[in-house]
Amino acid sequence: MSLVVLGTVALDHVKTPSGVKKDMLGGSASHFAMSARLFTDIHLVAVVGRDFPLKHLEFLKRKGIDCTSLTVSNGKTFRWRGEYKKDDLNTALTLATELGVLQTYVPVLKEHQKSLPNIFLANIDPDLQLALLEHFKSPRLVGLDSMNLWITHKQKSLRRLMKKVHLFVANDGEARALSGENNLIMAARRLRAMGPRMVVIKKGEHGVLFYSDQGMFSFPAYPVDHVVDPTGAGDTFAGGLMGYLSKAGKLDDKTLRKALLYATTVASFNVQGFGMARTATLTMRDIEERMKGLIRFFALT
Amino acid sequence: MSLVVLGTVALDHVKTPSGVKKDMLGGSASHFAMSARLFTDIHLVAVVGRDFPLKHLEFLKRKGIDCTSLTVSNGKTFRWRGEYKKDDLNTALTLATELGVLQTYVPVLKEHQKSLPNIFLANIDPDLQLALLEHFKSPRLVGLDSMNLWITHKQKSLRRLMKKVHLFVANDGEARALSGENNLIMAARRLRAMGPRMVVIKKGEHGVLFYSDQGMFSFPAYPVDHVVDPTGAGDTFAGGLMGYLSKAGKLDDKTLRKALLYATTVASFNVQGFGMARTATLTMRDIEERMKGLIRFFALT
Repeated sequence: MSLVVLGTVALDHVKTPSGVKKDMLGGSASHFAMSARLFTDIHLVAVVGRDFPLKHLEFLKRKGIDCTSLTVSNGKTFRWRGEYKKDDLNTALTLATELGVLQTYVPVLKEHQKSLPNIFLANIDPDLQLALLEHFKSPRLVGLDSMNLWITHKQKSLRRLMKKVHLFVANDGEARALSGENNLIMAARRLRAMGPRMVVIKKGEHGVLFYSDQGMFSFPAYPVDHVVDPTGAGDTFAGGLMGYLSKAGKLDDKTLRKALLYATTVASFNVQGFGMARTATLTMRDIEERMKGLIRFFALT
Repeated sequence: MSLVVLGTVALDHVKTPSGVKKDMLGGSASHFAMSARLFTDIHLVAVVGRDFPLKHLEFLKRKGIDCTSLTVSNGKTFRWRGEYKKDDLNTALTLATELGVLQTYVPVLKEHQKSLPNIFLANIDPDLQLALLEHFKSPRLVGLDSMNLWITHKQKSLRRLMKKVHLFVANDGEARALSGENNLIMAARRLRAMGPRMVVIKKGEHGVLFYSDQGMFSFPAYPVDHVVDPTGAGDTFAGGLMGYLSKAGKLDDKTLRKALLYATTVASFNVQGFGMARTATLTMRDIEERMKGLIRFFALT
């Protein structure tokens, strides 16, 4: 079943201990789509400016991503500049953001896209997420991601949105900030009470915690000994999760556990290259093989 | 097979969001022994002062812990005073330590204990750990724990010791500090290169990572939503690990994985009560039951 993602398409300037890359294709929706396309057909809803390099657009299309609702506006593409220091590769230091065309963006959908069943609202202003969600006729599965900026400055909109989604994805810091709980089990419980019946807390190198009324489970992350660039790992994770759930067409416990294993696996590839370089070359065979290693990593015997 | 532990026996004064407790039985060796006794017979090697309450000694003996080599010296028992704040229950803030009889302690063993096969050098001055280890004739399995204080001030002794042990246990912060590596896989690899052929990195609420030349594995922690007092959780974990390995009498992959599951399970009980209150009342039946829940927590289906 088809999947729609709303989020950012960005030009990233990233510095990590492994090097520096300028004008890379980035953004929450791009990373998500590059991962989700491995599992299902994916529609991108986002905006870029007239400075957006044609090669990036062609690249997205070549990877099978539907760009029908990728708006091209007068102005500059959203830019993010960040750095990761050697002693804490988990934390992005934002050096600069230029919103550009994001400032005036109103998401639009083609008529035939309004009946698509699966939606992911990747990290972007929650008011835009709310606006897009209203266009869908009868969504089957709606997932949501956010960030500390919106938790701090637009919590009211975010809270309103949380009542309308089925699955909420957050990293541990965001989960703690939004719930006001330090203990992650308690944090997950509070987030669940805010609306979404499934809560996924990403713990970076420590893996993932899933919480619902039916139960909790947790998997460790795949062990990566050399992280090149963590940018987009969370979006790549969410793309694998929603991609597999859209493909599977069901939400039972077994399917959810499997979806989180796929998500964990795809995210582990993402951090091994700059931007989406590694994710873009992935095949299902690469994923299946590494997933076997992941399963072995926490097997009982 | 029997197990010997060297470490501290302390009187703890602990404040957590759940309350305050004074003059509690604490210390690395006490917590370790209270956990290990559930799996095998355990010999305690430690020192207390003449102010040590008789009730604590009787309590240790009643729990089946061999106190033959618990020295009683003139002077005061080691005291630790600490606090855990609501927003970070993983980090103990040390408010005061009074070394007392620890300052002049020289560990001694009874003749018959020198041929015991399994040894754990719980957190204490590495020079004392080295001194004790020399008394053993032909140890089968030697485990070692330490802390940041010794990594900073006695790293030379600690490094010498690491060449003589089979298994090294550290929390994530200690592993990073001693190895100089932020990535935990790389940190484990460096620690392995320092001597011990098995490295166990405890990640608190995030579970555990095991590393050896034969392979790596990782388990999440049992989900505890209300932590009363984390004091001694690491020692309780090590007690379960070494206790099970001593009982099993082998070190194959399957046994190691099972030992770490037992360790994780016992540690999860420890944090649910002050001091060793909860660990002291545990039965193997409680442990087996919770371990089923833990296994379900990261099961594939």
